[in-house]
Amino acid sequence: MQRAELIHQIKTKRSCLCVGLDPDVDKLPKHLLEEEDPIYEFNCAIIDATADHCVGFKPNTAFYEAYGLSGINSLEKTIKYIKANYPDHFLIADAKRGDIGNTSSMYAKAFFNRLNCDAITVAPYMGEDSVKPFLQFDNKWAIVLGLTSNEGSKDVQQLSLNGKPLYLEVMQRVAKWGTTENLMFVVGATKAQMLRDIRSVLPDHFLLVPGVGAQGGSLEEVFENGANKDTGLLINLSRQIIFAGNGEDFAERAAEQALIIKGQMQKYIHG
Amino acid sequence: MQRAELIHQIKTKRSCLCVGLDPDVDKLPKHLLEEEDPIYEFNCAIIDATADHCVGFKPNTAFYEAYGLSGINSLEKTIKYIKANYPDHFLIADAKRGDIGNTSSMYAKAFFNRLNCDAITVAPYMGEDSVKPFLQFDNKWAIVLGLTSNEGSKDVQQLSLNGKPLYLEVMQRVAKWGTTENLMFVVGATKAQMLRDIRSVLPDHFLLVPGVGAQGGSLEEVFENGANKDTGLLINLSRQIIFAGNGEDFAERAAEQALIIKGQMQKYIHG
Repeated sequence: MQRAELIHQIKTKRSCLCVGLDPDVDKLPKHLLEEEDPIYEFNCAIIDATADHCVGFKPNTAFYEAYGLSGINSLEKTIKYIKANYPDHFLIADAKRGDIGNTSSMYAKAFFNRLNCDAITVAPYMGEDSVKPFLQFDNKWAIVLGLTSNEGSKDVQQLSLNGKPLYLEVMQRVAKWGTTENLMFVVGATKAQMLRDIRSVLPDHFLLVPGVGAQGGSLEEVFENGANKDTGLLINLSRQIIFAGNGEDFAERAAEQALIIKGQMQKYIHG
Repeated sequence: MQRAELIHQIKTKRSCLCVGLDPDVDKLPKHLLEEEDPIYEFNCAIIDATADHCVGFKPNTAFYEAYGLSGINSLEKTIKYIKANYPDHFLIADAKRGDIGNTSSMYAKAFFNRLNCDAITVAPYMGEDSVKPFLQFDNKWAIVLGLTSNEGSKDVQQLSLNGKPLYLEVMQRVAKWGTTENLMFVVGATKAQMLRDIRSVLPDHFLLVPGVGAQGGSLEEVFENGANKDTGLLINLSRQIIFAGNGEDFAERAAEQALIIKGQMQKYIHG
């Protein structure tokens, strides 16, 4: 998907919500466990219920790999379902891959060519030749970890390089390897001041923002410190939406939550 | 596998060779492509041919994910084959995973419980809570990226923190999260002086060393700068061994290469 198309979707819906598809089987509604593929059934219901309120979906590969071949099968079916029914939604494989060049290329082909995802999340620790293979595909995106929303972000990302935080140095370096048309960054919602610092050096890139809600980040702070003229944000919520209910009406509960979030976003996104 | 057991294997065989199972289909012997599962057939032949000369096998998940469900199936079958036939070999899933805590836990369960691997490679950028879930399993190992063998290692890993290279700071921090019984580091063979620096601060940890051969690292330098009293090294070679030949005798060619490497190692490893 091209950047202009993504921006168009955001402006049209007045939403930059991305729904994280992390279907932990222990948390699925009990009645689905009788289905042949509970994960797939769950995902399809969540996707149908929330599609009007969001501009993207983000399955995290861990929640599929955990169940082996059947889990990977559920992931592939989910991706096909989204592509077939919601081709205008931005589809992110949250895989956090990254390896030496020829190996990263294998991952890139898997997620971009085989699965036809629009984007994949990528870890930056191995440097330019590990990230570049993800930047060689037309209208496909690498979303590189910048500053994550977890407690552990202080251990490496927030180390100080002569007073400059490492994550900022990493993001500025990575930014040179691609463009604002094929590169985004993961920036957690939990640190408002840091979001502001990032925007001051990277005003144009899209940011994929986890950590609103369950992890304590505030939607208001994210928009105030992170939005740019194109909005420039994809705000991801997973558990708060997909596990809003766990009865037979779980999809309706998810739709309600997604609608609430979309409503809160409309204050900041103008068509 | 326990550390003592791994050391025993190394001393008994006088080899610390790990064979990387990266079966790029474009490079497989042509006659195998007629088989139902060429990757699996290739791997089994390589495993049988090299098992006497090595102490470990390391499939890189990228080379299986690239082929979707059938590739993942080949990976699972390969792992089962190793576990059934060579239970004393150290089995590393080279997956370079790492995510927020509950998500890393899903990966850990997938690779340790479902697939029964002995170790998984892990990226450190997301910090302690992303690595710790891999350290909660008896006799299982996290092998964390320290200093990789690729050109891109200079982009992030070799940044300077007041004169101290980042990779050294990262490795010292990570070392506090586990023990020498459940934590190893990836350290590329291509930088002898850096290997010496690492050993001076982390004398006891096992190091998984890629980059000998195809990437230009020297076996002699790795032993001279990286070995400790327990050897403390797993030296991985992939392409140089598995693609030593590509005719019908590919497995014999691989065995020859593995035997040559083992022979070179015996100068440094005493039973």
